[in-house]
Amino acid sequence: MAVQIRKLDSTAPDFQQILSNLLAFEAETDDAIESAVAKILADVKQRGDAAVLEYTNKFDRVGAAGIAAFDLKQEELQAALAALPEAQRAALRTAAERIRVFHERQKQELNGFTYTEADGTVLGQRVTPLDRVGIYVPGGKAAYPSSVLMNAIPAQVAGVKEIVMVVPTPDGVKNQMVLAAAAIAGVTRVITIGGAQAVGALAYGTGTIPPVDKIVGPGNAYVAAAKRRVFGTVGIDMIAGPSEILVLCDGTTDPDWVAMDLFSQAEHDELAQAILLCPDAAYIAMVEASIHKLLPDMPRRATIEASLGGRGALVKVRDMDEACAIANAIAAEHLEISAEHPQQWADKIRHAGAMFLGRFSSESLGDYCCGPNHVLPTSRTARFSSPLGVYDFQKRSSIINVSEAGAQTLGRVAAELAYGEGLQAHARSAELRLKPSA
Amino acid sequence: MAVQIRKLDSTAPDFQQILSNLLAFEAETDDAIESAVAKILADVKQRGDAAVLEYTNKFDRVGAAGIAAFDLKQEELQAALAALPEAQRAALRTAAERIRVFHERQKQELNGFTYTEADGTVLGQRVTPLDRVGIYVPGGKAAYPSSVLMNAIPAQVAGVKEIVMVVPTPDGVKNQMVLAAAAIAGVTRVITIGGAQAVGALAYGTGTIPPVDKIVGPGNAYVAAAKRRVFGTVGIDMIAGPSEILVLCDGTTDPDWVAMDLFSQAEHDELAQAILLCPDAAYIAMVEASIHKLLPDMPRRATIEASLGGRGALVKVRDMDEACAIANAIAAEHLEISAEHPQQWADKIRHAGAMFLGRFSSESLGDYCCGPNHVLPTSRTARFSSPLGVYDFQKRSSIINVSEAGAQTLGRVAAELAYGEGLQAHARSAELRLKPSA
Repeated sequence: MAVQIRKLDSTAPDFQQILSNLLAFEAETDDAIESAVAKILADVKQRGDAAVLEYTNKFDRVGAAGIAAFDLKQEELQAALAALPEAQRAALRTAAERIRVFHERQKQELNGFTYTEADGTVLGQRVTPLDRVGIYVPGGKAAYPSSVLMNAIPAQVAGVKEIVMVVPTPDGVKNQMVLAAAAIAGVTRVITIGGAQAVGALAYGTGTIPPVDKIVGPGNAYVAAAKRRVFGTVGIDMIAGPSEILVLCDGTTDPDWVAMDLFSQAEHDELAQAILLCPDAAYIAMVEASIHKLLPDMPRRATIEASLGGRGALVKVRDMDEACAIANAIAAEHLEISAEHPQQWADKIRHAGAMFLGRFSSESLGDYCCGPNHVLPTSRTARFSSPLGVYDFQKRSSIINVSEAGAQTLGRVAAELAYGEGLQAHARSAELRLKPSA
Repeated sequence: MAVQIRKLDSTAPDFQQILSNLLAFEAETDDAIESAVAKILADVKQRGDAAVLEYTNKFDRVGAAGIAAFDLKQEELQAALAALPEAQRAALRTAAERIRVFHERQKQELNGFTYTEADGTVLGQRVTPLDRVGIYVPGGKAAYPSSVLMNAIPAQVAGVKEIVMVVPTPDGVKNQMVLAAAAIAGVTRVITIGGAQAVGALAYGTGTIPPVDKIVGPGNAYVAAAKRRVFGTVGIDMIAGPSEILVLCDGTTDPDWVAMDLFSQAEHDELAQAILLCPDAAYIAMVEASIHKLLPDMPRRATIEASLGGRGALVKVRDMDEACAIANAIAAEHLEISAEHPQQWADKIRHAGAMFLGRFSSESLGDYCCGPNHVLPTSRTARFSSPLGVYDFQKRSSIINVSEAGAQTLGRVAAELAYGEGLQAHARSAELRLKPSA
């Protein structure tokens, strides 16, 4: 077969360096994109709806007479849902329901707290939802209804009142499954705009589009650049890098299954990364044979070949313990532990976006309908960040209610430290609350 | 008096516009700083310790012979603690203990979860600490020991094993109170470097400094630019804007107290913002009189005058309900509700970094020793972000363990949706787990 997937051995002296090179991915900053995006954002900030209308008519080749034409009515979303084939509609509903159950569980965990000290001082933390969020959904071929569910449902569960979805419709073509997903997920408004102009409209607001507090969802390089630029004015989710799967296998899973799991990541994108770690050389050869056997039948074969050939690897490791150590260094977005008694290995994993345990837990199940979110930290960012969740649509406020008695003891401590830092007004502000006789 | 603080009335027709202009703050992007920082980061990434040594010797005017000279021994930190005046040491210890108690409470809230479905499928979320974090502490005059406590203790409570603090020592001068705070807060290593070179060293690692997973802590424009640039390679905290206080007062608090609370924010920085909202014009006049009376005695008078004159305001509102509505639009970093029965107004607040309830809860108490964090979202970002907390040093991983029975039902749903999205390998990966007879 055409695909050449590299085979590595962890005992090779240059293994660390080769692995490190293989994992390296730096998003290029394209000056042309940056300056185009800066110009569009400034224009949308300045001219609002007029700018959004012009850019949308130009880039998406739609001949809208006014900005109102981009607003989809709820009836159109409901009609899209009603028109889906029954099996598809049922699958969307099942997926949405399961995603909702998982994220409701997430919400239960974060309730805030207060506690009262002996002198009556009350301290605590309050958790509240964001008021209004924007969800970016790509148009055209990469329009994924599952992504609508995964972004909108956590916001809705968090209690966000307004969920504004933007989705471009190049040449006026609307993806009916995406609209159906919006209807199921509780999106409150759908606007058929996209690109940097849509990000600008959501961040700054226009005459007809209110400014949101946070923008989430995937997009192309223009959208990513625009999100980076409006960060601070609004919150954003992580800028995602190429998707990754890391499979740890003890050699007991059907090699066809593992090969197909690697494909399922590789078919996303030529830059996607699929890596297998296994202590059994004979098993790795079987997976390789499965790859060659199964590849010719895959419709997205060219993408899979480019991805596996360019960034994939089959790695022979010393043992599963070493596989876990390497997995911690990789901090993969998706980690499959395809093994007997997977929990023993899961216990050794410190960094992963999502862990798929046991041979029946294929990543594809998680991508669509297990319940946990499929928006996950890429490019080793699982070392410090989390799956998209309800918590991304909530924020915390500290509560401080100091009693008169509390102000006497805390005031002395604060004043001492404030004088030490040379902040005398801080010290005086604390001291004014002290009783003169105390 | 010299200070001219603007007085506004919420019933004025142009009030919204004036308020909006007053709140507007855009961090300038300085091209000279950007390019200097880009060069330093690239150099540190390339040459490691040698570059860090050169930049530190140059910018901080220290004549270190080698990189090892920048490492402070734990004994030096303990000696700094032992040498503090007793009152200062006790105050630092009390503050640290109270901060620890509050953040331990935060940690209890986030435990992760798992649940098992009827078919044996297990779903869940695991919460784990970051491995290693870097804390940036400014050197020179703005070196605040309280900031060391507020950044390091949440990391330690989260379970972070290695807490690496960097603090520049311009001209070799070490702030003993900062070193003492590091000793108390459980910092595992202190390196006397700063600027973009320190950020680069923490993000990329050098021969002697291991790369961290996240960098937190305040810094000057070079540090902020460097943090923005390394974001993605490591996590960062929010880039803070100027500090703000918003006081809602019903007119029942001693006006001297409110004036001093406004000063305590204004003394930070000429760009700091202090605003009072009150329904009582006579009371506002009293606060203004207090401002004029108290200002001459303040050592940081010039800064206070510039801040109050440039960005401060005393605002007459219709009533406390309107004050709450305006407070939600401002989404202040610090919100004091200095009123009788403050909870009734607190219940109407949706957005604030920290809420200080009742007249004894001066912001200065929270800045030092109440327990909640003093690193708070600025510039209206409290609409979508939270105080620094234990959760900033933890991340979540999803757990998916699908049973054989679960794979049968979930596999059909996933395959249906995957085919709908044109991702056939995803569909096949799910279908391979289906029993042939099923």
